[in-house]
Amino acid sequence: MSLFKASLGVGFHWSCRALQKPKIKLTKDVYPVKRGNFAVLNDSHVQQFESILGKERVLTDPDELDSYNVDWIKMVRGYSSVVLKPKTTEEVSAILKVCNQHKLAVCPQGGNTGLVGGSVPVFDEVILSTSLMNQIIKINDIPGSIVCQAGCVLEALDTALAEHGLMMPLDLGAKGSCHIGGNIATNAGGLRLLRYGSLQANTLGLVAVKADGEVLDCMNTLKKDNTGYHLKHLFIGSEGTLGIVTEVAIQCPPKPQSVSLALLGVVDFEHALRTFRLARTMLSEILSSCELMDDNCVGPVVDTLGVRNPLANHPFYVLIEVSGSNASHDEEKLNAFLESAMGEGIVSDGTYTNEPSRMQNIWQLRERIAEALLRNGFVYKYDVSLPHDDFYRLIPVLQERLKGSEAQIVSGYGHLGDGNLHLNICSPQFSSELLAQIEPFVFEWISKRGGSISAEHGIGFKKTKFLKFSKSDAAIRTMLQLKHLFDPQGILNPYKVLPLE
Amino acid sequence: MSLFKASLGVGFHWSCRALQKPKIKLTKDVYPVKRGNFAVLNDSHVQQFESILGKERVLTDPDELDSYNVDWIKMVRGYSSVVLKPKTTEEVSAILKVCNQHKLAVCPQGGNTGLVGGSVPVFDEVILSTSLMNQIIKINDIPGSIVCQAGCVLEALDTALAEHGLMMPLDLGAKGSCHIGGNIATNAGGLRLLRYGSLQANTLGLVAVKADGEVLDCMNTLKKDNTGYHLKHLFIGSEGTLGIVTEVAIQCPPKPQSVSLALLGVVDFEHALRTFRLARTMLSEILSSCELMDDNCVGPVVDTLGVRNPLANHPFYVLIEVSGSNASHDEEKLNAFLESAMGEGIVSDGTYTNEPSRMQNIWQLRERIAEALLRNGFVYKYDVSLPHDDFYRLIPVLQERLKGSEAQIVSGYGHLGDGNLHLNICSPQFSSELLAQIEPFVFEWISKRGGSISAEHGIGFKKTKFLKFSKSDAAIRTMLQLKHLFDPQGILNPYKVLPLE
Repeated sequence: MSLFKASLGVGFHWSCRALQKPKIKLTKDVYPVKRGNFAVLNDSHVQQFESILGKERVLTDPDELDSYNVDWIKMVRGYSSVVLKPKTTEEVSAILKVCNQHKLAVCPQGGNTGLVGGSVPVFDEVILSTSLMNQIIKINDIPGSIVCQAGCVLEALDTALAEHGLMMPLDLGAKGSCHIGGNIATNAGGLRLLRYGSLQANTLGLVAVKADGEVLDCMNTLKKDNTGYHLKHLFIGSEGTLGIVTEVAIQCPPKPQSVSLALLGVVDFEHALRTFRLARTMLSEILSSCELMDDNCVGPVVDTLGVRNPLANHPFYVLIEVSGSNASHDEEKLNAFLESAMGEGIVSDGTYTNEPSRMQNIWQLRERIAEALLRNGFVYKYDVSLPHDDFYRLIPVLQERLKGSEAQIVSGYGHLGDGNLHLNICSPQFSSELLAQIEPFVFEWISKRGGSISAEHGIGFKKTKFLKFSKSDAAIRTMLQLKHLFDPQGILNPYKVLPLE
Repeated sequence: MSLFKASLGVGFHWSCRALQKPKIKLTKDVYPVKRGNFAVLNDSHVQQFESILGKERVLTDPDELDSYNVDWIKMVRGYSSVVLKPKTTEEVSAILKVCNQHKLAVCPQGGNTGLVGGSVPVFDEVILSTSLMNQIIKINDIPGSIVCQAGCVLEALDTALAEHGLMMPLDLGAKGSCHIGGNIATNAGGLRLLRYGSLQANTLGLVAVKADGEVLDCMNTLKKDNTGYHLKHLFIGSEGTLGIVTEVAIQCPPKPQSVSLALLGVVDFEHALRTFRLARTMLSEILSSCELMDDNCVGPVVDTLGVRNPLANHPFYVLIEVSGSNASHDEEKLNAFLESAMGEGIVSDGTYTNEPSRMQNIWQLRERIAEALLRNGFVYKYDVSLPHDDFYRLIPVLQERLKGSEAQIVSGYGHLGDGNLHLNICSPQFSSELLAQIEPFVFEWISKRGGSISAEHGIGFKKTKFLKFSKSDAAIRTMLQLKHLFDPQGILNPYKVLPLE
């Protein structure tokens, strides 16, 4: 999710609208998907929504709706004719009661920064936007937590917490736009997961509204609560298909007093892995990021975007961030680590800094990769998890497999510390022949090695047919049973996550 | 769960048998609970179990069965006439198929160290013991994880991991006996949660068998896997009522290079809370425990058990453990913290050490509290979570309320860092009048303040009627729906967790 950090701002909807000519094709005309047996929105429905929200929070102007119908990477497009903007859990409940009664399908939408087509309608689903549910309800200094509405923007939460000496346990490229409710609905990962864990680990409580409008109050700010089934976890990562998250409580670690960043050049992946292993041992509790980039990624960032690489060219780069409560201790640990890494010949060259603008420069080498690769034409993007021994093996396998094809770059980068690889294949334009050489081969390869076909981006609309590569038949059956239990008519975010019939 | 660390050993079943005269009354004769409409075990069932496991792993000798029918605090007792000891997931599946077909109720049992009567039968349920499912399947050095069977003893896993420079992310008093499967089934908390998070945070994957014998393979050793619903979380903390966990994968942090322990005396709870607040800021990433004991707890440990208190008497004690990768850094941070705490008058007196035997002595002041209090007669025990501002307020409220009653000691201790209070009320013997003064008052008081009536011990058999104080009606309805979905006949650990009809 750490894509386009530098290029994304809070004015996302605006920029989307501005950029979206030429029109993106409708999803229904591109993908083999059949509209479910849902009602078609009519004036009576709109009047009912207006009676709940007032006219000004029921959008029906086609121009206004455009940006809500298209995802931000402009891969999918629906044709919803209404956007609803509730401000409270009660309003969400009232809306869903109407939708469930009339069997109107609903697409919940947060910041619309997802990468798998999960946050826009596939057909004409009613869009329920959390953008006006942006109130911070409470910040607890001790032991550190925040309670807020689902539509709060991640970066705004981080800013509010900083005044209390706290921070959000997650950080990702879309933080200026993404909503915490969407983060939770997708179990978003990002750059701090290595240190602070996932949202499954950090969500203390939530309120969700089920398809029939029933409010399921699992709100909690306690660290320990073993009173029955831990229902909140069903909503974390289910991408809005089991219920709509309206309020959340997140545990928040102390904001570090010091942050330093090292960029290291290594000769091959084996040395990159040794670097991570050494960092884990020597930096232990202060290690906050361990990222990998191959030169196929860094090259384009330097060449195309003009970002400066402070090191000479290397086949691989490892980026190590440390953060802690004592700057001189952190520096001493980092120095000892770098001395060992250089002394043992694990790392060929390196630089480190705690100066903000220099850190930002180094981060750009990592965070603008997706942007740089897109400049080369079409990019086939995969976000996968693999056991560390297999982490990079897929890249040379694909390079060999795609020799003579249209593929120009086969590159890998990602969250090495978390075993999360972003695989990118670039070609001058989209080619279905090339796609057929990549899929399902990539998913089969990953599945055989116990990997995951979607590490942090989720299944959304785009990956439902590949779910079987990461989930057993029994697990998929159980998912379908849960979906039926929570949403018998299937109105919540249809065509997403679960296999299409 | 950190009770009786010093007194509990691996020979638990033996000691239970030896101590259990006079006979503990049968649960059915003490509590108002009605046997469900389940089949009664007969010879044909036993023969089917023997055909799956062989005769030697189907125990029917009443003497052998005694210790499996009684919980370790000797509060509840069932009268099962069979204990089954599978070694594999397949055998668990075959057993459950037979039980489900004949509608035989099943009580899954790990180390039988639970405190709420969850791990022994209430009536004559078939006991399925995980004690022979004790194989470690794999230890991954990088990024650090263990895959093992559910019957592995927690301490054995920690020992095996130490050879790889790793440790388990949880530690609790019963570690010499408790099984990791039971830990996961109860979402066990313990002493390291403050630093490393809960089992909901640390369980990477698991295999569970549903009531009908279907194997639900959610095994995974990846840190990131967003492919559909996160089903494993349903089994973590559901206390064996939705399925039987047979294999688990846990992420494991690096074993710290240094550990130090400080015992601090403070004048009141407000100062204890300020101590925690300062520790969280100044010790941040190396803080690994923050425990509170009042003098009503420490007094009996010193007087009754002869444990030495290295400080003069104080109304409250705070125990601070730090651990990290660099001993001199840790010591410097701890010194700076202690200087601030003393200099600002937060702490009245203190001592710290990194010498193992002295650390053990200090830990005994905390870990033998339950044992010491029991020497005074009967103990009414409560394990609750509260917001930090309300953490200790319940104790003086109860002291006032119980004036003139049989209560001799009303004391509080626990995991201050996690907001988890262990409330203990001692009287010479059990008194139903005293109990009526405590319950449901305590639960109502906690519920009003947004606390949890069971922080880490779970609901089990003993607390089902109090579930409503921590769960909304909608949540309880959803729990019942999930139970029906996963176990339509209700054969798995009946009378536990969910409200009795």
